[in-house]
This record gives sequence, C-alpha cells and structure tokens, in this order.
Amino acid sequence: MKARVAILLSGRGSNFLALQAAIARGAIPAEIVLVLSNRKSAAGLRSAAELGLPTLCLPHGEAPSREAHDERVVAALAAAAAEWICLAGYMRLLSPVFVRAFPRRILNVHPSLLPAFPGLHAQRQALEHGVRVSGCTVHLVDEELDHGPIVEQRAVPVRSGDTEETLADRILVQEHRAYPEALRRLLTRRWTIVGRRVVFARSRSAG
Amino acid sequence: MKARVAILLSGRGSNFLALQAAIARGAIPAEIVLVLSNRKSAAGLRSAAELGLPTLCLPHGEAPSREAHDERVVAALAAAAAEWICLAGYMRLLSPVFVRAFPRRILNVHPSLLPAFPGLHAQRQALEHGVRVSGCTVHLVDEELDHGPIVEQRAVPVRSGDTEETLADRILVQEHRAYPEALRRLLTRRWTIVGRRVVFARSRSAG
Repeated sequence: MKARVAILLSGRGSNFLALQAAIARGAIPAEIVLVLSNRKSAAGLRSAAELGLPTLCLPHGEAPSREAHDERVVAALAAAAAEWICLAGYMRLLSPVFVRAFPRRILNVHPSLLPAFPGLHAQRQALEHGVRVSGCTVHLVDEELDHGPIVEQRAVPVRSGDTEETLADRILVQEHRAYPEALRRLLTRRWTIVGRRVVFARSRSAG
Repeated sequence: MKARVAILLSGRGSNFLALQAAIARGAIPAEIVLVLSNRKSAAGLRSAAELGLPTLCLPHGEAPSREAHDERVVAALAAAAAEWICLAGYMRLLSPVFVRAFPRRILNVHPSLLPAFPGLHAQRQALEHGVRVSGCTVHLVDEELDHGPIVEQRAVPVRSGDTEETLADRILVQEHRAYPEALRRLLTRRWTIVGRRVVFARSRSAG
C-alpha cells in the first residue's frame, strides 16, 4: 500500500522535488496525490504539472481569514484523500483547524538544528549567534511554530566567511537528504510518540 | 611565548587530561601553571600532581559567600600569573567578580550544541526533547550561564536506545577533541569578537 502524500509549497519547492525523486525511484512507498500552493507564481507548481502530478492553487488572499483559507485547503486535501502532508517551503502558518485535521501526519523541514533558531531567517540567526555547527530538522507539525516531535536531523559546519546564502545552500543539500529519509522511516517503520520523542521500533512493519 | 593556562575542575577532569596531552605533545603553545579544585577529593587533582603540575585545593565551603570564594580563587590564579582559565568540569557558577577578572580569557565546554540545552543535565534534556543530533560546545565564558561566544562545536548523532550515559560518552569523545582545538586556535590565530561571534583572521599570528 502506498501512502497518499500531498505537498504544500509557496516557491520553487526544492524539497518537493527531492521527495518526488525519492518516490519515483521507489525509495519511499508513497504517491503524490496533490501539489498545492497558495501562490500562483510558485515555480514548484509548474514543476509538478510538468511531472504530470495533480496541482491546485488556492491563493490565500481570496479567503477572509487564516482559518477560512485553511478550511479550503483542508477540504482540498480531503478531496484528494491525502493521508500525509509534506510542507515544502509553504510560507503560511498553519492554523489549529489545519493541524487538528491531520494529527501527526504533517511534516515540515526547518533550516536549523531545532530547538535552536526556530522562526524566520534561521540561517541568519545561526550566523549572528556565532554557532560552528548548524543543520536541518524534519519534524511533525504541532500547533506551535517549529516545535513538533523531531524525526530527522542533519548537521553541517558553519564556516568562516559564510554568508546567509552559502550557509543556506549547505543546509539545503542536507534537507534534500533528510526529508525523504524522514518520510521513508515514518512510512516503513513502526513508531510512536513518547513525551515529545518519536520512537521507532526496531523491526520493520509490513507497510 | 607560551600562554599560561590554569585549569579549574571538581571531578576527574577528563577534559583537563585532554588539554594536558595536547600541550605535552606540542599541539598547543601553552603551559599549565595551576590546576585548582574546589573539591579535595577531585581525581583530577591527583592526576595533576602525578603529572608534576602545580595544584591547589580551595574548598568552597570555607568561604562565607560565592563572591568571597571567587576572590580567593582569582587571587590564586593571579599569584600563578595565569592568563587563560580553562574550566574542566568545574561545578561552580562563576560570579561576576571572577568573570570580570579574566575578560574573554575563560573557556568552558558544555555537552550540547548551544544555544540548545544550556544548564545542568544537557544530555538528558537532549534525549527528552527527542533531537537526533547533539554535540558539544567550547565557548568563552561571560556572565550568563552557558552563553558566551562560541569557539568550537562538534556534532554527534543521537541513536535510538541511547541513555544519558551512552550519549554523554559519545559527546565526551568530541569534547576531548574540541577543547584542545579551541584553545589552540585562540592561541595561534588572531581573532576578535563581533557582536557575539568569535571571528578568526585568515592568517596566523606570530604567537
């Protein structure tokens, strides 16, 4: 059984492409059932269409409130029978109505080693703090920003002379590895959440 | 010119031994001019004496206050003409009187990737948070706990089934590498602090 995965993005969606590539080569037992954007101009939407994937654009400006917009998005995801939601550069905070519609089934990637540097401009925060190691985090989304249980992290060095851009590029390479690996593990292993830890069982499940 | 380094410890001082080994093999242009403990029973004191290093025990219970104790410690460090202070498992918070006596010349190592998990039981904090990557941080000491400018960090994986002890052991291996490297860089490179970043110049200084 393949898991039905929807992707939400606002830009080029490079993490979407990394997930899609891993799925296409059979590394993840999933199929992408919808690529949804809140921005018509998102390059990731065009990439999805070129790959023959179902796409949908729901501009957030057309809804009277965050909740109203999220209700439309949740309805579209339900219509596509999506089981898992992967955020891939989706520049919208999710309202509780969204998070509660897919408990423990929404994944996000963040460009820092959480709990360090949540929020916007994580790479800039890391540089200004003077850390020598940063990285990325794939986590389940809960109702707090960049907070939910952590599935996968990868470290990268911060180098002298790094700019926000050079650090972001180095982290992005690891995001493209960590995100497919996180989804693969969640779909192929038995796991549960203890406290705020994602605990994987040793043996693989049938799925 | 060798830098005059004092070590402060409360226990076995494994990081002291790592620093001493690096100094002894000529990797760091420094000499240890004093090993000081607040605990008479500290195994690190015995190791220091066996290595022929000057040792001093100043039990903190003998001073009427934290400041009074730190004034005695600072006086002993001054008497030894110490230029740099390396904390190696020194289980005492430094009072401002201590920190201000050696501005930007006190180093500490902490078993997490700061700013994540400052304070006691950093490894337990990391396990309970469910991170997949942790590590250690060598930093200059300022007046806030586990807060000063970062000199060196090393990442380690957190594995399924890790206990506080197995994680602490894995991190400790990296502490023993990061601490000598941090001291070496500070003593052999030109550096300055910009904001809260330690910025090393590209070229080596004569020292």
